[in-house]
Amino acid sequence: MMKINICACFLLWATLAQAQQKSKFTSYVNPFIGTGAVDKNSLSGSNFPGPTMPFGFVQISPDTQDNPDNPASGYDYNDKTIVGFSHTHLSGTGVADLFDVLFMPATGPILPVPGDANKPQSGYRSRFSHQDEAARPGYYQVKLQDYGINAELTATEHTGIHRYTFPKTGNGHVIIDMDHSLNKKRDYWSCKIIGAEIKVVDNKTVEGYRIITGWAKLRKVYFHAEFSQPIVSQTLFNGSQPFESINIINGTNIKAALNFNTTSNQQLLVKVALSPVSIDNARQNMKAELPGWNFDETVNKASSAWEKELSKIEIEGTQEQKQIFYTGMYHAFTQPNNMADVNGDYQATDMTIKNAPDKKHYSTFSLWDTYRAAHPLYTLIQPERTANFINSMMRQYDTYGYLPIWQLWGDENYCMIGNHAIPVIVDAALKGLKGFDLDKAYQAVKGSSNIDHPGSPFAVWEKYKYIPEDLQSQSVSITLEMAYDDWCVAQLAKKLGKNDDYEHFMQRSEFYQNLYDKQTGFFRAKNKNGDWIAPFNPLQYGGNGGNPYTEGNAWQYFWYVPQNIPGLIKLVGGNKAFTAKLDQFFSLKDLPGEVNGNASGFIGQYAHGNEPSHHVAYLYNYAQQPWKTQSYVAKVLNELYNNSSSGYSGNEDCGQMSSWYIFSAMGFYPVNPANGLYSIGSPVLKQAIIKLDNGKTFTVTTQNAAKANCYIQSLKLNGKPYTHTYLTHEDILRGGKLEFVMGSKPNYKWGTGNTSN
Amino acid sequence: MMKINICACFLLWATLAQAQQKSKFTSYVNPFIGTGAVDKNSLSGSNFPGPTMPFGFVQISPDTQDNPDNPASGYDYNDKTIVGFSHTHLSGTGVADLFDVLFMPATGPILPVPGDANKPQSGYRSRFSHQDEAARPGYYQVKLQDYGINAELTATEHTGIHRYTFPKTGNGHVIIDMDHSLNKKRDYWSCKIIGAEIKVVDNKTVEGYRIITGWAKLRKVYFHAEFSQPIVSQTLFNGSQPFESINIINGTNIKAALNFNTTSNQQLLVKVALSPVSIDNARQNMKAELPGWNFDETVNKASSAWEKELSKIEIEGTQEQKQIFYTGMYHAFTQPNNMADVNGDYQATDMTIKNAPDKKHYSTFSLWDTYRAAHPLYTLIQPERTANFINSMMRQYDTYGYLPIWQLWGDENYCMIGNHAIPVIVDAALKGLKGFDLDKAYQAVKGSSNIDHPGSPFAVWEKYKYIPEDLQSQSVSITLEMAYDDWCVAQLAKKLGKNDDYEHFMQRSEFYQNLYDKQTGFFRAKNKNGDWIAPFNPLQYGGNGGNPYTEGNAWQYFWYVPQNIPGLIKLVGGNKAFTAKLDQFFSLKDLPGEVNGNASGFIGQYAHGNEPSHHVAYLYNYAQQPWKTQSYVAKVLNELYNNSSSGYSGNEDCGQMSSWYIFSAMGFYPVNPANGLYSIGSPVLKQAIIKLDNGKTFTVTTQNAAKANCYIQSLKLNGKPYTHTYLTHEDILRGGKLEFVMGSKPNYKWGTGNTSN
Repeated sequence: MMKINICACFLLWATLAQAQQKSKFTSYVNPFIGTGAVDKNSLSGSNFPGPTMPFGFVQISPDTQDNPDNPASGYDYNDKTIVGFSHTHLSGTGVADLFDVLFMPATGPILPVPGDANKPQSGYRSRFSHQDEAARPGYYQVKLQDYGINAELTATEHTGIHRYTFPKTGNGHVIIDMDHSLNKKRDYWSCKIIGAEIKVVDNKTVEGYRIITGWAKLRKVYFHAEFSQPIVSQTLFNGSQPFESINIINGTNIKAALNFNTTSNQQLLVKVALSPVSIDNARQNMKAELPGWNFDETVNKASSAWEKELSKIEIEGTQEQKQIFYTGMYHAFTQPNNMADVNGDYQATDMTIKNAPDKKHYSTFSLWDTYRAAHPLYTLIQPERTANFINSMMRQYDTYGYLPIWQLWGDENYCMIGNHAIPVIVDAALKGLKGFDLDKAYQAVKGSSNIDHPGSPFAVWEKYKYIPEDLQSQSVSITLEMAYDDWCVAQLAKKLGKNDDYEHFMQRSEFYQNLYDKQTGFFRAKNKNGDWIAPFNPLQYGGNGGNPYTEGNAWQYFWYVPQNIPGLIKLVGGNKAFTAKLDQFFSLKDLPGEVNGNASGFIGQYAHGNEPSHHVAYLYNYAQQPWKTQSYVAKVLNELYNNSSSGYSGNEDCGQMSSWYIFSAMGFYPVNPANGLYSIGSPVLKQAIIKLDNGKTFTVTTQNAAKANCYIQSLKLNGKPYTHTYLTHEDILRGGKLEFVMGSKPNYKWGTGNTSN
Repeated sequence: MMKINICACFLLWATLAQAQQKSKFTSYVNPFIGTGAVDKNSLSGSNFPGPTMPFGFVQISPDTQDNPDNPASGYDYNDKTIVGFSHTHLSGTGVADLFDVLFMPATGPILPVPGDANKPQSGYRSRFSHQDEAARPGYYQVKLQDYGINAELTATEHTGIHRYTFPKTGNGHVIIDMDHSLNKKRDYWSCKIIGAEIKVVDNKTVEGYRIITGWAKLRKVYFHAEFSQPIVSQTLFNGSQPFESINIINGTNIKAALNFNTTSNQQLLVKVALSPVSIDNARQNMKAELPGWNFDETVNKASSAWEKELSKIEIEGTQEQKQIFYTGMYHAFTQPNNMADVNGDYQATDMTIKNAPDKKHYSTFSLWDTYRAAHPLYTLIQPERTANFINSMMRQYDTYGYLPIWQLWGDENYCMIGNHAIPVIVDAALKGLKGFDLDKAYQAVKGSSNIDHPGSPFAVWEKYKYIPEDLQSQSVSITLEMAYDDWCVAQLAKKLGKNDDYEHFMQRSEFYQNLYDKQTGFFRAKNKNGDWIAPFNPLQYGGNGGNPYTEGNAWQYFWYVPQNIPGLIKLVGGNKAFTAKLDQFFSLKDLPGEVNGNASGFIGQYAHGNEPSHHVAYLYNYAQQPWKTQSYVAKVLNELYNNSSSGYSGNEDCGQMSSWYIFSAMGFYPVNPANGLYSIGSPVLKQAIIKLDNGKTFTVTTQNAAKANCYIQSLKLNGKPYTHTYLTHEDILRGGKLEFVMGSKPNYKWGTGNTSN
């Protein structure tokens, strides 16, 4: 007996250890981070808690709002009810879309409730409690209090699987809502359901689709669903009109209520495969990824996939740091999403179906955000997928004439400014990534810098050498960002020996100077006649049009010359004037009445909640005051990130907000995301080991890591004193060790050229 | 010399004779018939004058309105200006859509005209005169007065070819407008352009597409265009914003101005192939159908194709009769349109691309109109295409769950009521047409009679045995038409030995009786509780919802029991009461204030301008007063058709208005379009020879044919006296001769069973 007990104990221990090993990294991921603002001074990250595979297509998650708008993820941690589980979501965006094919289990009557024309049944919303809710990579669970149903979700790349545990009731049912989308009146992005169908194929199979125009111009979403228990009857709804005796319904506002004989604790499993191409493809997707019914195995597979991705950086630090860091990686790898079916079919920009030979066609490119740090992170630890991303973006160039600006569901939506696929591609090219055609890539980045398109009037750019506000709104922001993209084109031209192009684009990259107003000391809008636009208030915010500044003000946009920071310093009058201006930036608290909704996480005028500020704390490095970089970077890391639902100081923005943390917490950040350099800040992690695709590792250690010790005392690279305020990409790729020694007081000599450490 | 001259003369004569022979039938077609009302008491037929192949996809025609709405064809004979030539049109419908890919040649400046934001250039509209305009099958020509350009058009099935002859000018150009569509504010059918592209591929090739939602829920229209002269430069427009230096533009309101070096009398040819699937397919379509540049040969091919189709009925009569008759056949064969590309690809109802093995996928099924006489005409002289039509309709059943009601661009739009694909299919099946699967056809007609769908609440139908107005508007019209469709299902059930189904659907076919109100003598609406809806005014018109009658009143709908006319006569109290009611119908002139816009061509309450009246003049035949049928049929033929632009008394309705003429002018009409019988009226043609697919001919001769002689004096079939007021389909198929003798006074004995003639 004793012997057996020992054996059992060992087995138990071994199993636990194995499980622990299996969830070494995923155990730190808290999918609720970023799902809700905690007060009116904070913002939701617009993240969703439901399961997804890394870069997966199906991203199934609870929606707490009927017609989600804000947060764009459909889930607000502050809401008290859930309307169902839809299969596609955006993570961290400022704008909503998707929410396709909502499933909701319920009990009770399903017939229309008088006076509630848009709710065909009473069982369409349930209260829930965060006490009865759980989420981890690949798994979500919630108790639907109004129905006593426990709902669990997991996902493969194209398939969601639901496990509903019913209470003692005879009349459990599942609602399928094909009308669940953006706000009700459909005026948000002119959202309109063009057509939809639900078909009960047999008593265990339901198929259908919806064709919808919204933020993405045209999405076709097909599904194939299988149930583990027989459907005993169904009611299909066209609007609020119920039909009892039919098995197919077409319309623009259609729903189905499927009835099951449920008993106490009975589990109903539902598998729902999606395809942007056809029902046939949805069926194929399910067959390839989830032929069986093992929910727990599917959870384990998703968890293992995440474990593999998260293991690419192994860190030591506090529990909260690990939670923020790994949830950040989780959010960074939640998109771009592979829009190709398992057979490679995808919808091209011309709305035809094409086939990707590599079975990968990524979309959800929030490039204005992600080119800054998320793509450099992918380039570093997702080099193969980066090549896939680039090939996917180049397909838009092929059919659309220029690279993506903001691409959703394979479709350009022109959200934001700039052509920031260019830095992504150029960075990958300069870092020597394989898997895409370099000449074609150059053709694409050059072409996208010459063909006029919305927000990018290149003929005007070449003619005036700045963007005149009277010809193109958001002119200062576009001028600054376009100049940067031009610099990127020039670098690739140089690498490929295209010297004329190099010269030409380098000239264009200096056009930012033409909007510098010496008198006010800001980049300021001009009309096409060359006059400054007056009155001018550097605190005044612009939104997304009608103002020279994009989601920011002149203070925040002043710093955007990453291609030539010495040039910027010179413009303003040298290091002293530059750092004084930075000091003012980080301390000037006056906020005008109208702050852009994306601006939050303020330190003076610095707004970590939106991207224009993201590199600014690092700029002291370039003007001989690296200790101030260290101080502000540490302040942001320690104060503007946390492990709560309000863990980000603004929209998480498809991985950018997280990637800032991931880099900065390790001690460095790509201020110019395409020059192969990382500016050194203030590491907060005790240790970070980057495991590279080339088999090497780069280890960062931090002695005296603590909130109070934000200042670098000394630094060694591979055992040798290191006094540069930057690392090179080669330093990392080569593998090695970066050793920080931190302290509570600045070392004014380090990084200023005044000491060899 | 003399010899040569003789020879030349002979050749000239031979050529002329051959040409004459070649256009024996097409010479009578006047495509301007039906293109414009002449005064406010008449209606346009909503036909278009531009060229098309029989049942072709590309139907290129001048548009006289920027955002066409009424007439739905885009061309109003009363308009004075043309905005361009778009490539797709509807013929005869009451509702507008299509107008894809507008081309317009012009001279003069192309830059924006201040204050006209929606017109990117001045050359976007030209005056024209009917003096300088010509149209015949396969050819259209107009002089664009403002530019001195002569424009000529012709078409293959998928390709339009334009020939523009320029005046002496250096700056000829061609505008491509991808924004030309329904009315400007896009609120008509929520019309919205989802996306569009124009790409100047090289100096002779332009490609592009537009994705649009409108009356058809989702249309993707791709084009490939080739020019015979090099494009020397281009301006592309996004809205009113011009771009000079680009060769691709994407947007929702895009245009191109292509500039050519033109000299006096220089001809610029443009070939434009369309596809509903892809640019690749558009390119393939052109390659297959129009690889070269021979405009005149293309005209000849189109003309020959029409000659072949029109030769299926060879008539003798007056010039005007021939013009009305052959233009009628031309209009009847203008649709349904083959939506499949040359490779067979087509867009299915689920918005996926499928492939039709027979390369045919027909759409534009205006079935509420066309099942009455147009489809019986197709069944008679287009049997092979009828099988294609049926296979195409059954594809909707496969993917959509029920047969088309009104199908446009392969897509259901639920216009009008009933499920009148059923009589079309049943008629073809009962007449023994080959080329479709009979069992599947039965499955489709039965399925479409059981699955509730918009306008067709079958569960309600079975429960109440009539349609209650409080559950479904247009209830009287739906009850009557649904009962007829049910009778059709029963007939096919009987043929296939499905006796239970036969009994069931025959019972349903009698449900019309349940809305007969003895007190008023009309079919009248009930609520679901069985009460008549009051007040009741048999003159009051309904439109398309909100009233028990569809585009008509109780008077017009009284007559709709084609499946059981004896039953209807019995309901009203016998022949005398029935003919008295008919007399009142044809004489009661009181029109209420609100007459439905589709009602026109009045004889009393009879409105030939809309379909509910179409069979009514023939009903005297069933109650022993055939001479009144003869009188009213002749009156309609002679007074409500003419060869002017206002030649129809209402919308031509995709061939129905024409088919009424074609049958009636020959002396018979399918009152019940699925029972294989033709009711005999009053022939107005001197002779008509129907050339059947089986190689036989059926000849109708009319002695004393004249307007004054509308009454049948005697009739022989194959040389024997014939006294029935009907012909059978077999009589015609067998071949033979029908000989009418007409006179100015009724022969009260003929057709009443009182004489053997």
